[in-house]
Amino acid sequence: MRPKIYLFGDSITEESFDDGGWGASLVNHFARTVDVVLRGYSGYNTRWALKVVDRVFPAAESGGAAASEPPVLAVTVFFGANDACLPDRYAAFQHVPLDEYKQNLHSIVSSLKKRWPKTLILLITPPPIDEDERLRHPYAENPSGLPERTNEAAGAFAKACVETAGECGIPVVDLWTRMQQNPDWPKAYLRDGLHLTPDGNKVVFEEVVKKLNEGGLSLENLKVDLPLLVDIDLGDPLKAFDHL
Amino acid sequence: MRPKIYLFGDSITEESFDDGGWGASLVNHFARTVDVVLRGYSGYNTRWALKVVDRVFPAAESGGAAASEPPVLAVTVFFGANDACLPDRYAAFQHVPLDEYKQNLHSIVSSLKKRWPKTLILLITPPPIDEDERLRHPYAENPSGLPERTNEAAGAFAKACVETAGECGIPVVDLWTRMQQNPDWPKAYLRDGLHLTPDGNKVVFEEVVKKLNEGGLSLENLKVDLPLLVDIDLGDPLKAFDHL
Repeated sequence: MRPKIYLFGDSITEESFDDGGWGASLVNHFARTVDVVLRGYSGYNTRWALKVVDRVFPAAESGGAAASEPPVLAVTVFFGANDACLPDRYAAFQHVPLDEYKQNLHSIVSSLKKRWPKTLILLITPPPIDEDERLRHPYAENPSGLPERTNEAAGAFAKACVETAGECGIPVVDLWTRMQQNPDWPKAYLRDGLHLTPDGNKVVFEEVVKKLNEGGLSLENLKVDLPLLVDIDLGDPLKAFDHL
Repeated sequence: MRPKIYLFGDSITEESFDDGGWGASLVNHFARTVDVVLRGYSGYNTRWALKVVDRVFPAAESGGAAASEPPVLAVTVFFGANDACLPDRYAAFQHVPLDEYKQNLHSIVSSLKKRWPKTLILLITPPPIDEDERLRHPYAENPSGLPERTNEAAGAFAKACVETAGECGIPVVDLWTRMQQNPDWPKAYLRDGLHLTPDGNKVVFEEVVKKLNEGGLSLENLKVDLPLLVDIDLGDPLKAFDHL
């Protein structure tokens, strides 16, 4: 049974199989070793995510997952971009207070750890926000003239996400900080001030692979389940399949 | 449990999650309804595929798959490009005689039908071959000056694949014929005379979606397992999660 990596998150996860998406790149990277499984839910914040986490993932048996299930090597947990919507602006229905966001993240991590004690849980912070672009697209109909998200608020949620990872003793990709290391980040990495361009997707892919590698989940360590072409004897190809 | 669609094939399947790939596009299309699972094996012909089919797919119980497994809605079976390597040319070790190719396809289909009697099995023929491009890349070291594959041979295997689908009473995408309807097919659809460009990937994606739709597997018919943002009451979002 091929092991799995789940991608759990909001729209930035749900659309990660669009052209150049970081989810598709992960499948491509792990093509012969791991099933990368999409569990992205557009618009969701951690409050909603917590409501559905037991339905998103297979029921836990007492003491862990059923023995007949494929092992789950890792889960990426990528929420916060919606929680960070400001409570008095255009997308207020998605807002979650900062303290509750941290508590919700803790609860999601606990739920996953209870299900799969050995699984690598990787948090990803929300990306930075290009406020000007948010007013142009997609919220051109926003009557207030004020963006529904700010980069400052996204930064506070990113900081809380990094703190939560520290408190849980798990790795984190600080995407908010990482992206802003490139001065061209608003145009280079964001296509509408929030969602990712192909280059922005590439950053997420590379940072996730780096953290997976640091956690021991590298192509060198993972088992290929069937013979690779390079391991097949061209003079006697069927030999490779004799003792599977 | 979210249902699955498996993609079983050779390198054109294995690399279908690279930029613009047809596999990634299928995940994106079915993002909230189906898990699209990659089972691509570079270099494999039907002879090798038949050797591994029982390891690629979960073991069949008597009378079908185990009740605890997610339903498998469809399997794409996309082999023939390697079988069609000529027996006296540079990649002869991959060649499979035409009669055996048909028999192997029949055996693969039977194996899947036995496992999952109600599952839609979709055959895909090999694509056409741009022979000039095959000599330039990747086989520049080929000393014979003759391409290892010809378009004529690929066409014979495509015809056999279409015949097999008819004999089995299952659908088929005749990619060899479909691509050549565009006079620019060699450059438009093939990046090395065999593997697909983004536009070539788009053709496969669209043809596969069409056949899945004709078999009842359309977004209109498939169940979304958790509330979509459009179905959430902005005034009382949590209501949507009360009765899951």
